[in-house]
Amino acid sequence: MPERALPKTLSIRDIYEARAMISGVVRRTPLVLSHALSEATGASIHLKLEQLQDIGAFKVRGAANKLLRLPALQQQQGVTTFSTGNHGLAVAFVANKMGIPAVICISNRVPKAKVDRIRRYHAQVVMIGQSQDEAGEHCEKLQQEQGLTIIAPFDDPYVIAGQGTIGLELVEDLPRLDKVIVPLSGGGLLSGIALAVKSIDPRIQVIGVSMEKSAVMYESLKTGKPLVLPEEQTLADSLLGGIGLENQYTFQMTKDWMDDVYLVSEEEIARGVAYVLEHHRMIVEGAAATCIAAIRQHHIVRPGENVVCIMSGCNVDLSVVTAIAQKYATG
Amino acid sequence: MPERALPKTLSIRDIYEARAMISGVVRRTPLVLSHALSEATGASIHLKLEQLQDIGAFKVRGAANKLLRLPALQQQQGVTTFSTGNHGLAVAFVANKMGIPAVICISNRVPKAKVDRIRRYHAQVVMIGQSQDEAGEHCEKLQQEQGLTIIAPFDDPYVIAGQGTIGLELVEDLPRLDKVIVPLSGGGLLSGIALAVKSIDPRIQVIGVSMEKSAVMYESLKTGKPLVLPEEQTLADSLLGGIGLENQYTFQMTKDWMDDVYLVSEEEIARGVAYVLEHHRMIVEGAAATCIAAIRQHHIVRPGENVVCIMSGCNVDLSVVTAIAQKYATG
Repeated sequence: MPERALPKTLSIRDIYEARAMISGVVRRTPLVLSHALSEATGASIHLKLEQLQDIGAFKVRGAANKLLRLPALQQQQGVTTFSTGNHGLAVAFVANKMGIPAVICISNRVPKAKVDRIRRYHAQVVMIGQSQDEAGEHCEKLQQEQGLTIIAPFDDPYVIAGQGTIGLELVEDLPRLDKVIVPLSGGGLLSGIALAVKSIDPRIQVIGVSMEKSAVMYESLKTGKPLVLPEEQTLADSLLGGIGLENQYTFQMTKDWMDDVYLVSEEEIARGVAYVLEHHRMIVEGAAATCIAAIRQHHIVRPGENVVCIMSGCNVDLSVVTAIAQKYATG
Repeated sequence: MPERALPKTLSIRDIYEARAMISGVVRRTPLVLSHALSEATGASIHLKLEQLQDIGAFKVRGAANKLLRLPALQQQQGVTTFSTGNHGLAVAFVANKMGIPAVICISNRVPKAKVDRIRRYHAQVVMIGQSQDEAGEHCEKLQQEQGLTIIAPFDDPYVIAGQGTIGLELVEDLPRLDKVIVPLSGGGLLSGIALAVKSIDPRIQVIGVSMEKSAVMYESLKTGKPLVLPEEQTLADSLLGGIGLENQYTFQMTKDWMDDVYLVSEEEIARGVAYVLEHHRMIVEGAAATCIAAIRQHHIVRPGENVVCIMSGCNVDLSVVTAIAQKYATG
């Protein structure tokens, strides 16, 4: 049975529709002022606390929108996905809520804390290979052999529209928003947020941040086409993963809408995690800390600007957090 | 100039009024399900995330309601308070927002992290003595000599009504609420929440929790009158402090409305902090962790119940958090 026709071009109405669909599963998260970052920069810098979603990451928004749109027969047959962690967690969580069978394929590089949490939502977990691409190949096998529907982690209009619901909340909570700083991996989060905020005011800037290691979207944009890069160990492990050589949506959307992009060092990511611990008493994962790192390493905000950093998740091993706290944080 | 007449008896309308007054300063905080605690107990256990208030603790609610009600002349002359930390922080924060001069008197036992944060809000900090009572005496001197208005940390109807706004949010977000577990010190938080939830349904149980060390309200209730106890070192340092020999409101309100009270050990408080780190990737202070400790040490929830634990704050030294994480937490 064919999937319902996907929208070729997305509009902000797809995001409003996503919000109406997912409101029972997804939390409207708080936007909090960072006194410390604001004092340090002269800007008003806010943190969007997506780590407060039930699964500890924003990914539940896109997964919920996608699974809720699947035809009933596909829901019954079940879903599968590949993921560096948070998307797998999101699919497991939503599938469990909806009573849909789910098989999550993840690479052996995914931290143990994330694997344990996926199992909590009663999904079947398959650990395979050393990269997200290898896990993806296993998913395709499951699709062909068992009729499971693959839930793509980012390159899907419903997933993008789901992540875009963050953008609506930002403008509603901070109507004078000037700049959003977004962790950049496959580009689903950035594309969704950009679609939302730029539909409301094209002058709102959307800034992507990746780690220096394995910055696939960054290198692909520079080259002009999707690339494959080897995955390296990074604190921002949620941002690992290819963008897909057959990328249909997020490569072009990121190219069209991202106003600027910065790479941050592992050292600065660690200091970003420490900064949030020290000044906000919050645990965030390395991917989220890239936003803080970008502000501190590259001075990308100007006095007077209204800025939001997307705290994308908190799924990080506690041993990593304590090591960072002891090395970099005071207070 | 005399203060406006204080209400002798509070009603839920005072709490609604407080909410209308403080909405510009106070955040409506999320209520999140604890999957782990719910699985472990068979109850639905939710956490009320008051650590997400700007100051990292619920105390901003009561302080905001009190300061906003002060006559203009008193606002101009300035305010002072004594506090184990979070109330001082709250008064400093609200006074700073309103442009009111503030002098915060605290004992030398207050953790450095809290002192630094009070200074951030441009309040004058006076560190004096070894207990909250000694700090209180200095406040009275300031009142007499400089005309500053003392903002009491809990035994004030406006402060109680401000804290009570939490209770309204709980019933709105979880209409089938059965039981609220509340950290108990001077009783302002418990009195306010109890007034709110019991006005809506007297069958909603309100459970107080204190640490075994220096449990002043607990011992006072047992004796039938307010007592003074020496302050001991505890992880739940926010719950230290006397209830005042001249207590006018919270002693009686706690006596009338608290359905049960439990004491928890330092070991269990530490394990409670670790539990929230491990299962929620959140940092909470020892006072907040007493709720988790009570559930685990005393088995105070029953399967099927809808329960809320008040996460009262997160103002704890990071060195304390990392030590606890390394000793007790996994993941």
